[in-house]
Parts: sequence; C-alpha cells; structure tokens
Amino acid sequence: MPKAVPEGKTDDRMRAFAERVFASETKDDDVRDEISMFDVADDCPILNQELAQHMVEDDDVEKRKKYLSRTHPMLEDKPTYLEVPHFQRVSITGDYAAGVTMDDFELACKGLYRALAIREKYMKLAFQRFPITPSQYLCKIEGEQWKPENQVLPVFTPLPKPGEDPFCTKDFPPNLGYIPRMKDGVIYVYKDAASADKHQPLNHPGPDLATFIDDMNFLIALIAQGPTKTYTHRRLKFLMSKFNVHEMLNEMEEMKELKKNPHRDFYNCRKVDTHIHAAACMNQKHLLRFIKNSYRVDADRVVHVLKGKEVTLKELFASLNLHPYDLTVDSLDVHAGRQTFQRFDKFNAKYNPVGASELRDLYMKTENHISGEYFATIIKEVASDLEDARYQYAEPRLSIYGCNPNEWTKLAGWFNKHRVYSPQLKWMIQVPRIYDIFRARNFVPHFGKMLENIFLPVFQATIDPNSNPELSVFLKHRTPDKRSETIPSSRITPDPLDSQLHVGGAALQFTTLIFYWVQVTGFDSVDDESKHSGHMFSTKSPKPEEWDIVKSPSYSYWIYYMYANIARLNQLRKERGMNTFQFRPHCGEAGAVTHLLACFMTADNISHGLNLKKSPVLQYLYYLAQVPIAMSPLSNNSLFLEYNKNPLPEFHKKGLVVSLSTDDPMQFHYTREPLMEEYAIAAQVFKLSTCDMCEIARNSVLQSGLSAEEKNHFLGANYMKDGPEGNDIRKTNVAQIRMAYRYESLCYELNLIREGAMAE
Amino acid sequence: MPKAVPEGKTDDRMRAFAERVFASETKDDDVRDEISMFDVADDCPILNQELAQHMVEDDDVEKRKKYLSRTHPMLEDKPTYLEVPHFQRVSITGDYAAGVTMDDFELACKGLYRALAIREKYMKLAFQRFPITPSQYLCKIEGEQWKPENQVLPVFTPLPKPGEDPFCTKDFPPNLGYIPRMKDGVIYVYKDAASADKHQPLNHPGPDLATFIDDMNFLIALIAQGPTKTYTHRRLKFLMSKFNVHEMLNEMEEMKELKKNPHRDFYNCRKVDTHIHAAACMNQKHLLRFIKNSYRVDADRVVHVLKGKEVTLKELFASLNLHPYDLTVDSLDVHAGRQTFQRFDKFNAKYNPVGASELRDLYMKTENHISGEYFATIIKEVASDLEDARYQYAEPRLSIYGCNPNEWTKLAGWFNKHRVYSPQLKWMIQVPRIYDIFRARNFVPHFGKMLENIFLPVFQATIDPNSNPELSVFLKHRTPDKRSETIPSSRITPDPLDSQLHVGGAALQFTTLIFYWVQVTGFDSVDDESKHSGHMFSTKSPKPEEWDIVKSPSYSYWIYYMYANIARLNQLRKERGMNTFQFRPHCGEAGAVTHLLACFMTADNISHGLNLKKSPVLQYLYYLAQVPIAMSPLSNNSLFLEYNKNPLPEFHKKGLVVSLSTDDPMQFHYTREPLMEEYAIAAQVFKLSTCDMCEIARNSVLQSGLSAEEKNHFLGANYMKDGPEGNDIRKTNVAQIRMAYRYESLCYELNLIREGAMAE
Repeated sequence: MPKAVPEGKTDDRMRAFAERVFASETKDDDVRDEISMFDVADDCPILNQELAQHMVEDDDVEKRKKYLSRTHPMLEDKPTYLEVPHFQRVSITGDYAAGVTMDDFELACKGLYRALAIREKYMKLAFQRFPITPSQYLCKIEGEQWKPENQVLPVFTPLPKPGEDPFCTKDFPPNLGYIPRMKDGVIYVYKDAASADKHQPLNHPGPDLATFIDDMNFLIALIAQGPTKTYTHRRLKFLMSKFNVHEMLNEMEEMKELKKNPHRDFYNCRKVDTHIHAAACMNQKHLLRFIKNSYRVDADRVVHVLKGKEVTLKELFASLNLHPYDLTVDSLDVHAGRQTFQRFDKFNAKYNPVGASELRDLYMKTENHISGEYFATIIKEVASDLEDARYQYAEPRLSIYGCNPNEWTKLAGWFNKHRVYSPQLKWMIQVPRIYDIFRARNFVPHFGKMLENIFLPVFQATIDPNSNPELSVFLKHRTPDKRSETIPSSRITPDPLDSQLHVGGAALQFTTLIFYWVQVTGFDSVDDESKHSGHMFSTKSPKPEEWDIVKSPSYSYWIYYMYANIARLNQLRKERGMNTFQFRPHCGEAGAVTHLLACFMTADNISHGLNLKKSPVLQYLYYLAQVPIAMSPLSNNSLFLEYNKNPLPEFHKKGLVVSLSTDDPMQFHYTREPLMEEYAIAAQVFKLSTCDMCEIARNSVLQSGLSAEEKNHFLGANYMKDGPEGNDIRKTNVAQIRMAYRYESLCYELNLIREGAMAE
Repeated sequence: MPKAVPEGKTDDRMRAFAERVFASETKDDDVRDEISMFDVADDCPILNQELAQHMVEDDDVEKRKKYLSRTHPMLEDKPTYLEVPHFQRVSITGDYAAGVTMDDFELACKGLYRALAIREKYMKLAFQRFPITPSQYLCKIEGEQWKPENQVLPVFTPLPKPGEDPFCTKDFPPNLGYIPRMKDGVIYVYKDAASADKHQPLNHPGPDLATFIDDMNFLIALIAQGPTKTYTHRRLKFLMSKFNVHEMLNEMEEMKELKKNPHRDFYNCRKVDTHIHAAACMNQKHLLRFIKNSYRVDADRVVHVLKGKEVTLKELFASLNLHPYDLTVDSLDVHAGRQTFQRFDKFNAKYNPVGASELRDLYMKTENHISGEYFATIIKEVASDLEDARYQYAEPRLSIYGCNPNEWTKLAGWFNKHRVYSPQLKWMIQVPRIYDIFRARNFVPHFGKMLENIFLPVFQATIDPNSNPELSVFLKHRTPDKRSETIPSSRITPDPLDSQLHVGGAALQFTTLIFYWVQVTGFDSVDDESKHSGHMFSTKSPKPEEWDIVKSPSYSYWIYYMYANIARLNQLRKERGMNTFQFRPHCGEAGAVTHLLACFMTADNISHGLNLKKSPVLQYLYYLAQVPIAMSPLSNNSLFLEYNKNPLPEFHKKGLVVSLSTDDPMQFHYTREPLMEEYAIAAQVFKLSTCDMCEIARNSVLQSGLSAEEKNHFLGANYMKDGPEGNDIRKTNVAQIRMAYRYESLCYELNLIREGAMAE
C-alpha cells in the first residue's frame, strides 16, 4: 500500500490560486517565448536583490551555523561500492543552501519533498516505477525505515518455460466472473451485477479524483512559487556547472575505462528506440521501394474499394493518375521539410503518400480491403532490419481511437493473423486525443463512451481471457524466436555475453528453442499539444459521461482519466498474475507547462519533454524522481525547435534521464538505420562522448518495456540497483566513474531536500 | 593562348603594400577571431558614414543618371532558353551601384575584373576550368567576341573502344626522346640534352614567376582595399537576401518541378565524395571488423618486421599486449572526439589504431611486409559498398611524399598488383607539405629535390611511357567493368536513362562489355594550414634548389611550385593527347587568408574554404569565378569549427559552388554510409530542401574528376553549358527554376562589374 502523503493545506485559497495560474497560462499563447510565470530569467532583478540582501544582512545566523556544524552530507552519505576507479570529485564545502535565505530554502525543500511524495504515491497505485534512491530519502524524511518490499514495480510477463506451446490458448486463466462497469469515467470491477448496481466495487485501490485535484493544485502553486523557482533554478545551474567540471576533470579517465573494457563499444551495446509510431516506422525510401515492389507483384490484385467498386492496385494508381514506376521520394512527399516547422497541422498531412489518403489506407493501416497485409509486411521488414543490426530494439505505437468497442479485437486480429512478431519489437497502444472530431460526427455520445471503448475490452479480456482469445493473445503473446534455430555459430561465438540467456536462473543454449514474449507493454497519449482546449481541469469539471459538448477536454483531463483506468486495470491484472501496462504519454513537446505537471503525477515516463526548459521547478523534479524522457531532436527540428537549440545535451548534463528516439523515420530520417542516424547526429552536433552515448543507450533500455529477463541480459544482473552497483560495464560500456558521479550528485541533491524538509 | 591580362600598375609601391599586408597577417595568430584587415564588420562605422554621406549629398548625379538611363541589365541580358517554369523573380530597379559612391563602385569593379582575368589566365595555362559565363563577360569588357574555341578544358581520357584490351601496354605512344630537367624548381622539357644545357626548352607555356608575384601582390592589395571590401561585402549580403526571398517565393514551385520529375529523387541522383583520404576511407567499425577478420584468417602469417625479426600477426598483437577479440572502437581510438577540436596535432595521431604505428603500417599503408595487401582489400571493400549503393562515387587521395624518386613506381606497383580498381573511384595524389621533417632528417638536400621527386617521374613516364609501364598504367589505366557482364536485367530496367551509355555517340548495350577508365585525375596539397611558416613568398624568396634550410616554405610558395609543374606537365600531356591533371589543394581550412588567394590563382577547385568567411573580396571572387569548394562540415566540427557555425549553408545560398565530402570517415562518421550521413546531417541541421541537396550533389559531379562521358551520362548531354540549358532535370533532380535563378544572379553580378569596369 502506498505511503501516506503528508497532508497539505490545500484549501480554497490554494485552489483559487491554482485556477488563476492555470487561467493565465492558457492565455499566453502568443507570448510563448517570453519568460512565463514558471520560469526564472538569468538576470532576474528580484533574484539579484535577494542575493544582495543575503550578502549584507545574513538572515538567520544561528540556523545557518546549525546546518554547518553537521557532518557534510556528501561524506555522510557516500555510498560504499566496489570497482569505481579513482576520480576527481567536485564537492562544495561550507554553506550549501544555494545562496537563498534559510526560510526560502526550507520552504522550497518542503514543497519539493511533498511533490516527490505525490509522485511516489501515484506511481505505486499504478504499478509504475519510482526509483529506490529518492524513495529511501523520502523514508528518511518521514522517519521510516526503507524496506525492499516497499518497492512497487511494473509486471513484465516472465519468459515461458522451454517446450511450452506459445500459441496454446488453454493456459488462459479461468473466468473470474467479475463485472467491469464504468462510473464517472473510470472502470470499476464488481464481484457481480448486484454489487455493480449498488456501486460496491472490489477493493482495487485507485486514485481519488478530489485528492488528485488537490495534489495537482498544490503542484501548480509550487511551480509558480518564487522561492522554489529560485532555488531549483540555482540547483539546476549548479548541476550543469558541476557536470562541466566533472567532464573536464574526468573525461579521460572515463574514456580509459571504456578503452579497457573488452569487446563492448557503442556499436554493440543495446539501444531501444523508445518512441516510434508504427505507421511511420519505415523510412521514405523503404516505403517507396515497398510501393514499387507491391505493384510489380500485385498489380492485378483487388486491394481497395473506390466509390463502392472494388479496384485493383493498377486501377487504384490509375485513378490517382500515377504510375509507381515514376514515383520518387519527392512525389511521395512524406518527408517533413521546412514547411512543417511550427505547423503540426501540415505535418499530419504528410502521413498521406502522394497526398492520397487511399495510399495511406492501403499501406499504413491495419484495417482495409487486404486486412492490413501491406502494413504488416512493412513492419516485419523494419523488424528484420533491426534483427540484422542485432543491438537495436524498438517500441512501435499502434492506435486505438476509442471510437468503437471492436477496435481492440480488430487490431489483435490483424496482429495475430499476420504474425507481426519480432523479438526486437515491444508494442505500445497510442490513443489520439481526437474526441472533438468523433463527437462532431456523432460517432460517440460523450467522452465517457470513448474511455469505455478504450478500456472496457481490456478489462473484459483480463477477467475472462477465453471470451476474447485474439485480444488475450495480443495483450500477452508469445512466439518462438525462429531465428534461434538457424543462427550460425559464427554469429554467436564473437559475443560470449550473448551466447546464453538466463531463464529463471538456468542457462539456455542457443541451440534450443528460445521463447520471447511479445505483448502490449504500455499506453501512449498523442496529439498536437500546442492546441489549447481552454478548459481547466478541476473538481467542477463535468464527469466524462456528462462531457457531451463537441470541444475536447484539456490535456490534464485526458491524462487523468487514462491514468485512472490504467491504474485500476493494473491492479486487476496484478491480482491475476498478468503483466501490467505503463503509461508513457507524449508530453511537453509543445503547449502549456501544466502538461508536464500532469505527467509528473501519472506517467511512468514521457516522450519529448522539451518544455521542461520553461519550468525549473518541474525540471528539477523530473531530475530528482529520475523520470525517463524519450527525446527526438530530429523530429523537434522539423516541428518545434531547431536542432542546435534542443535541450537534450543540457538535460543530459544535468542528470535528467534522457534517451534518443526517432518518432517518425518516414518523415525525418534519410538513412537505412534511423536510430543510428539519430545517435550519430546527436553525437556530432552536441559533441557527445562515447560515454555519453552509451549512457543514453543504457537509459533507453531502462526506460523501455523490455522484460526483466531482457534487461538483465542486456544491462547486467543488478540493473535494478542505483549507482555503479547497478551497472555492468561489460554490457553497457558506461564508465563506473560516470555512474558514481550521477549517483553521488543525486544523493547530494536529495540530501539537501531532506535537510531542508526536516527543519522545524 | 590565354588572353592578355590588363596591365596593372604593379609598381614598387603596390609590392611594398602587399608585403605590409602580408606581414601583418602572418602575425595575427592570436587575434584570428577578430575582424581582420580583409573583413568588414556588419556595423562598420566608416561604412555607415559613407552611406550617410551618400544619402545626403549625391556624389555624382550626372554619372548616376547615365547609368540609370541605360536599359536595365537584368532585362538586357535575360537569357533565352526553354523549359523553365514561370517563377517569381527578384529584381532591383533604379540605382544599382549597391549604395557605394560611383568612384568606389568603378574602382571595385575594375579591380574585380582584373582579378577574374588573372584567374582565367592561370586556369588556361594549366588546362583547368574557367566557366563560360564569366569568360564571356570578360570578353565583353575587353571588347572582344567570345568564341567557343576560347575555352580551355582539362583532358579526361575518353572511354576506350569496345573490344580493346585494357591491360595491353602496346598502345603506349612511343618515346619522344625529350629531356625533362628541373630549373628553378620547375621542370622544363627540352628537345635534347644540348638544348637542356643551354636552357632552350620546348615551347610549353607556363607561368612566369615575376608576373605571378606581381599578380599575387595585386590581389593582396585588392582584398585589403576599402572600397572593394565594402562593395563585395554588400553584394554578398545582397545575394544572401535575394536567395532568401527567392526561396520564400519559389520554394513550392521548385518542389513542384521535382515532384513532377519521374523516377529521379535525391537517393538516385549521382553524388561524388569529392574529398576523402584513402587511408581513412573506411569507417571505424569497418576497420575494426577488418582487423578482427584478418586475425581469424591470417594469425600465423608473417606480416611485419619487428626489430629486424619477422613476426606473425599473432606475435605482432602479442607484442602490443592486445588480442583482436577484445578490440572495440573505443580501444581502437581512431575517432576524432572533443579532444581534437583546434588540435590538428592530436588529430594526426588518430591515424594510429590503438595508438600503435605498427597497425597503421600494416593496415593503412601501401608499402609494408605484405605489400599493402590489407590496405588494398579494405579500399576494395569500401568500393564494393559504393557499388552496392550505386549512385555514390569517391575520389580517394593516395600520398606521394617527394622523399624519394621511386615513390611513384612503388605506388603504381601496389595499385596494379592488387588491382585496386572500381568504377566508383577516381584517384587523386596528395602531397603532404612536410619538407621540414624530411630536411631535418637529411632525406632531401633542398626543397627543389622534393619537387623533382614528385614531378620528374611523371614527366618521364609521359615522354616515354614504355620506360615505366607500371606508372603509365596507373596514370592512365583502364579496366573492364566486370559488373557489366553480370548485371541482372531487373536492376537495369527500372532506370531507362541508365540502361545505355553513350560512347562517342553510339549507344552501348549493357550486355556488351563496358570499359571504364580509372586514372589519377589530380593533385592535392595537404597539411595543417594553421601552422605558420613565417616566410613570405616574393621575388626575393630563394629558388627551390636554394631552399636548404630546415624550415618549410610558405603555403603560397608550395602552391605556386606545384601549380607551375602541373601546368607544364599538362601542356606536355595535352600535346601527347594524354589526360591532364587538376590541381585541387586543401585550402582555407585554417591559417591565413592568403592561402585562398594563392588557390584562386592556381587551383581548379579547393577543399574546405572555411576562411572565405574572413574575406568578402575573395568570397565574392570565388563566387564570380564559380570555383568549386568541397566542404566537410563534420570534419570541421571535430577540428576547426562547430557544426552549426559552418558557413556551408551561407555559401550555398549566396551561390558559391559547394559540394559535400567526408574527408575521413574513419575519424568522423558513425554509419555504414558516410557520404549519406554527411548529406543527412547537413540536410537536418542546415534545413536544406531536396532541391538544395540535389544541387549540391550536381555540384559534386561537376567538381569531380569523372570523365566527360560519365558526366554526360550522370548530368545530361549539355552539362558543360551554364544555366538551365546545362541542366537535365531528369538526371539531376535540380529544378530549372533554381538553375535559372543561379544563372540570372551570376549574370547580374557580372554585368555590374562590366558596367563598372567599362566606365571611363
């Protein structure tokens, strides 16, 4: 059970303040580049004034002395571990309250502490991750003893035993007979119909809307609070300078570690493309080649229905006045160019090859006249390229729109029919936030119905897997890795670390059949964030079943209801011993800073996160809680932010957990290896060292939905531990010095918060 | 014969001034980032003052009126051609003297005219290229009629007739019996020994040192001349703004042309890697794989002599305390990192794998215990990758040091023995400027001997090819393209433009054997340009045979003597009907601006050219003369200039002829396709459009040493013509609108010069 969160005085005054903040922010559309109320200017006069004051009249000499007399936190908390080579450490002695007054310091620390506790609570509720180190510090502040069993973790289905038939549907657990039913936008599970009618749900804890809104209002107030803004701004600046000094002093030592590390380099350490849309996972040249090939083979095949009449591929192209022979990447026109910059609306049109939605339907959809065969084949070709590259994995997103309850069954049917399987792919479900379009066309009566369409089928398949075997297999599916039977020994021998795979402790030879699981590992929420809804999420907001206007609800509203359903779903699945799902929305690509706040409360990890630049408080919180961020600077470069202005290198230096991802290779990339292209460009433009690149690759594996067995295999047995203990340099090629630096820096920051938060 | 160059008053006063300029420049080592005396600040007070004056009191109303009364040059000179779609043109009406006073305008134009005439003279002398359009304008200024036969062109050996035996040495022309002999650093050809003793050389025109120095001094004075600096600075700014407007207005129209262009896109238009060093032409991963493979196959082969004792590959690695199995790209350590930035000295050490020069000798040298077998194999693997990529070509550089007269024969022997042949490769000879090292070790008695070692063997093989068949074959070598016999029809049919190759007008089917020529096409001069020699090249400089001090002569001195020998060599080869060589030095990567001046006079085209940023006069001259520049922004990013500060996009916009090249894939690139990586990163960071990229690719083919037949095949039959007439969009994928824009802009600028230069 989650720890109790410290009670804050979220009274009406705070709520009113939050509303004012919120209202002001939804308006600042055209002043987006100016300093917002969450930001601090580098030459902020108030800050300078405070600093001057601080220098003249020391605010509370007594307090300061008390802090100073204590043992230096750095030394007190210095972890004991082995095998970190000697390196030069940056330590600050003397006053460490970061140049703010003691009162401000304590105020900021108390606020930050509470914010972290809020995140921990919501992560635990949904079986999402909250790292051990901050959790331990929170315990210390609360005067509790941290225990390993405190930790709540997502459940990734373990690998099946050898010999088990992966396509057998007999092992589905029996029907529990529960009744899932939606109430106020959230699906509850009831023992039977009678309890459902009386709304007496089973004891699956989930978030409480009123508390959630209180917590959210608290955080909104926090990120706009002067002293906290100043404090976090200064800490982040310090982290940046500290890393620069660390790098200057230890760069060669880190490199020495890597040079001494046999057989492992950036090319053969594992990397996961943590954010990629299935519909754009091939590059433009690949799509072009595929279209040309399909025409060579299938010209006379009926592939489409045009105005009620079945047409062949030849006729379809003729109707578009096109011959695939003449097609080029220029006429295909799926690549984002300068025209798409700051124009997300134009960008979406790029999904239509040659501007023809017919071709999008034919080649990039799961549902069409050929049952999505082409799309499946393209994805399998991409997977095959990844298998050849051998050290690259990807997490493609498939869409569930929530327009119809059959969507899941159809998608699962497509998936199973075409066996869209690869050990290199882990699947995610993306839900586009396009309620307004569906409502306008009267496809759904209200927002609640969309939520129901998205989640009810999954609840049902969880309660009675046999009622929907297609979907059950899709959600938790295993397939034998056919490669394993044919891998020539020449491909295995070079890498002893790879030649065996531990399954439940026992080593499995490559010569036996290896089973991989493929399954849906999480949910994503996608759409153009720069669109403002104008709505503010509060206790007064209409319930989803009452939301029947054509306007879309706000981002935070969407996020809350997705999270609330995922949390309850995970409780149910955990109870059944099934895998859970992570919530990994797009967040902070554009739009209001409050998006990042909603996801700080609800998301296991996010994609993009650019707008963390605009709020030092949130940026510092994402750092303290080590929330992973899948960044796509090439995508941003075509849509929202020029490449060399991307905050990735800055975030990485400060210690935020960033990974690199491609987003849409079809639109952004040129080469046959989009993920390598993404890494290569980042390395070149941001001047990343090998250690930086391997650290980012390691982050990507940690962030991903790969199973515990795979992470164990790719990162080392202790990958769950923080700091150098958790790093196996032989597998990750990340220097232990770097790991120690990151760990010690995080402990130092958390310790400051502990000191500040525990002051009377 | 070259046109007479207008006589300038290069009197002693000007020479003294040039010396002062030069002296001041060799000193400005530590103020390199400041505005040098060749540059103009954007907010130059004098410029503003002049402008203000110009606005208040119109300097010479009468003159200005006279100009204005003429027909607008834009309209007068508007070329007539076909097939350029309608587009929006930027034209400036009214006053066009670019806001400078009429006197300044005329002064600048006269100077620029003379500078262009100087380049034309030296290009013609050496059978290098000077484009038609500026040549026509120079004729107009001189009141002459331009005739096509005025044009002097390099000679690229034509393709042999089908059936001809490419390895036959019988077709070498007979011995002419001439005597080549060096005098004052330049090799002259004499009818016989008697004429040689009397120094009565055959009538091969070559540059005259005194005139060359006069011309150089004139140019030095010109690039430091206030009015010319201001004028060219303003013209370049105008060209930049004009392109931006053009782009804004016509980007979509250009794209429309490309979309309508069937079957051709950026991926299948030809690109040449115009600057790549053979010793680093593989990427780091490729080299690593090769080393590991060589160990698997050849562990017990004797490959090296260590302290007088023959050792096997196994023993060699043991002596280095290494096992190839453990080797990684990190321990290989050939990649340039942050450590190499501004440290060319460190960069050169990166050529040694694992820091061991033994491995460099074994894997990256043509002369070693295994006769350079590994190096040849690696190059052939790179070539095979290019053949697979099909649309990419490269011009690798091999070294001739000038330390020993046998170098040529040895290099040719290596080349022929291993048949280092590929239709994708055109060879260049690079001469490192390391006289000081050889002299210090007493390998050569004086600088003249180095020049003799570099050039005399080539003169000899030209006069009597049979005296050195190895070298003769290397300099002009043909091999049948074996691919042609095996290309499956499936690979041919998609591209009708490729399915036949015109040889002397007759179409050759792919089914017959096609002969490609491979040959040395040019010379490069290489070294760290940021090293200052401190020496100034003047008529008082010692002659090469007298240059016996340990210090190296200056860059300009090196360049002049290489040029002078190449010019005379080309005269001789032209007379014999043999191919000529182009001079394509590294220039303007770092160091003094005068390097760019020396190459403006002598080089067909250059590599790098970064420092054109520092001199508006030279930049404008490189534009007017359309001197191709092979740029390598990824290389610069690791050595001299951060990626996003690279002037490539600016040069490209202004209309300078730039191409993209990799320089050293081993040190800079990450992916399997270095040239594509170079293009992809440039496209992403500089936001190049498809039309930009295809224009750069077209430039690279034009700049390269590919034969006329190949250029014809890759760019279209009229590729020698300027403007849209010379462009075959079906092959180049460059919009005709772009071609028209470039052509009209160049004519406009040249016309201004004509107007200014012809004023009384």
